[in-house]
Amino acid sequence: MQNERFLRALRREPVDCTPVWIMRQAGRYLPEYRATRARAGSFVKLCKTPELACEVTLQPIARFPLDAAILFSDILTIPDAMGLSLSVDEGVGPRLAHPLRARADIDKLGVPDAETDLRYVMDAVRLIRRELNGRVPLIGFAGSPWTLACYMIEGEGSASFARPKALAWDDPATMHRLLDVVARAVAAYLAAQAAAGAQALMIFDTWGGLLAPEMFREFSLRYLAQIAQILKSNHVARDVPLILFSKGANSHLEALADTGCAALGLDWTIALGDARTRVGDRVALQGNLDPSVLHATPDAIRGEVGKALASFGAHPGHVFNLGHGITPEVNPEHLGVLIDAVHALSTRT
Amino acid sequence: MQNERFLRALRREPVDCTPVWIMRQAGRYLPEYRATRARAGSFVKLCKTPELACEVTLQPIARFPLDAAILFSDILTIPDAMGLSLSVDEGVGPRLAHPLRARADIDKLGVPDAETDLRYVMDAVRLIRRELNGRVPLIGFAGSPWTLACYMIEGEGSASFARPKALAWDDPATMHRLLDVVARAVAAYLAAQAAAGAQALMIFDTWGGLLAPEMFREFSLRYLAQIAQILKSNHVARDVPLILFSKGANSHLEALADTGCAALGLDWTIALGDARTRVGDRVALQGNLDPSVLHATPDAIRGEVGKALASFGAHPGHVFNLGHGITPEVNPEHLGVLIDAVHALSTRT
Repeated sequence: MQNERFLRALRREPVDCTPVWIMRQAGRYLPEYRATRARAGSFVKLCKTPELACEVTLQPIARFPLDAAILFSDILTIPDAMGLSLSVDEGVGPRLAHPLRARADIDKLGVPDAETDLRYVMDAVRLIRRELNGRVPLIGFAGSPWTLACYMIEGEGSASFARPKALAWDDPATMHRLLDVVARAVAAYLAAQAAAGAQALMIFDTWGGLLAPEMFREFSLRYLAQIAQILKSNHVARDVPLILFSKGANSHLEALADTGCAALGLDWTIALGDARTRVGDRVALQGNLDPSVLHATPDAIRGEVGKALASFGAHPGHVFNLGHGITPEVNPEHLGVLIDAVHALSTRT
Repeated sequence: MQNERFLRALRREPVDCTPVWIMRQAGRYLPEYRATRARAGSFVKLCKTPELACEVTLQPIARFPLDAAILFSDILTIPDAMGLSLSVDEGVGPRLAHPLRARADIDKLGVPDAETDLRYVMDAVRLIRRELNGRVPLIGFAGSPWTLACYMIEGEGSASFARPKALAWDDPATMHRLLDVVARAVAAYLAAQAAAGAQALMIFDTWGGLLAPEMFREFSLRYLAQIAQILKSNHVARDVPLILFSKGANSHLEALADTGCAALGLDWTIALGDARTRVGDRVALQGNLDPSVLHATPDAIRGEVGKALASFGAHPGHVFNLGHGITPEVNPEHLGVLIDAVHALSTRT
């Protein structure tokens, strides 16, 4: 590995400067991504064709001095492999053709076999590792059980996800049956990505922050902890650092840090220094600039990077990132300014 | 006043049972609202016609044993009176025809005279007070300066409000000029509502929670405190309790409680008991069930009401509400179940 910064920071080891990668770094803000996406014909086709997924994964690595690559894929590959049939239309967002609307739909679900049912993901991981050739580490990922259950029940995005919440209130036993099978699927999927070559793993709990505290602990946190424990008992995955990102769930940082993960992703609504004080040395932290900062001037971007680095302080264990994915209308040059500022303004730890 | 529960709870005085009102209680989930809205022809016409605004304000009071009425209006009446021209189309949301796109647009803004430029609101307040005839108190409201600035710059809703944030980063002096004139407008507007008869005042800081902590303090909290201080020096408004609701800003509760307001609105991502521990006896608390609970069964609704009441405990100073507005697809009977449960399950304080 030519660039170990990211993996060293996840292990809270000293680094020469703060590593940085960006959520959705392979995405629509890049003209080269839009060209490949157009060639693929559809977003799902892009995910399911290892050569194309590899191509877009590597695009931001070629353009910017990023310290990690992340597999190009989607969190809804698991529901798709479970038979719910994923499509993603421009402007509409993800849609599952067969959402779970009856208890019987949930009872029929099984854990997909990652190497057969999700072979295209594993092939992409292997291909990307080969093409990266040790330049930077590769991150694999999955959605959290709660977040996947939200989409599986609702069938599409929603402002409130009232359907999955109503199931949790009205029939918690059925909701737990669903979350348990999804958690086992996520754990198996992440372990398979590690076996295929992913050098870090991340779980996106995108909708955990929509839950009241007690529901968060019962329906999201519990299954994140279950996955972390399963991965600890896997002979490959136990050595691969796990990053948990529960967006909007900053009141639960201590509990998230106790799951056994290596690092926590943070959104921008908490100061890095405050988060570090709360979780201490239990985990590394990843984040957390407001993605809107990329709409500001280069000078303002550098200023905000400097403030975030100062807030974390000159300690080991910081991976720089935005607090959410980069958005399509960002000027790629502004991202270059941000990445350079992280490397230039951070200090050896 | 026949029903003093709401005003007593805001003053943290003992009550016979916990008072309850619901954000957007006069709204699309009610068939009688939809009928009046159709008669008005447009949402803005409904807001601007005192007789119709009065009619829909009273509809939920006639149907449910609510403990307060809230003026039917919109937070964007102030930008509209400043010349930005509001329209609200079904399915599109609010839109300002003349958003602020240049510094000169901001320099031209002045504080509207509430009794002339926003006369329709003051007339509605007077009419509603007359028609309520002392049954329950009437709440007046406004948007927060930050939230109004978001719409005034963006011209419409947005997932990220990147434009106003970029202005705050790139040219903070201009953003502060804008927020200052809007804060003076909000304070004058709320004071005029109090003079016209509003018995409590609420500020909706709907987008404060989109700000990183330092930006929240500089661009939202500071102006909420400024308004609270202006109202304290107004000979009518100083006796009218002020409720601040910064959605998604639970990490700032202590600072919000220090602004001099009477009460804080809470979203559902914090336990009421934890919030009470943090703010102590400084303010009353209003909230905070997840609005999605109204999609659950009546038994589950009663269970969640009971848990929220238990979390707050048998102390004075709780006004029951949802943690956000009720949504259009809710069955009104489920809201009736919630309101009855609040009264039945709460205890004398």
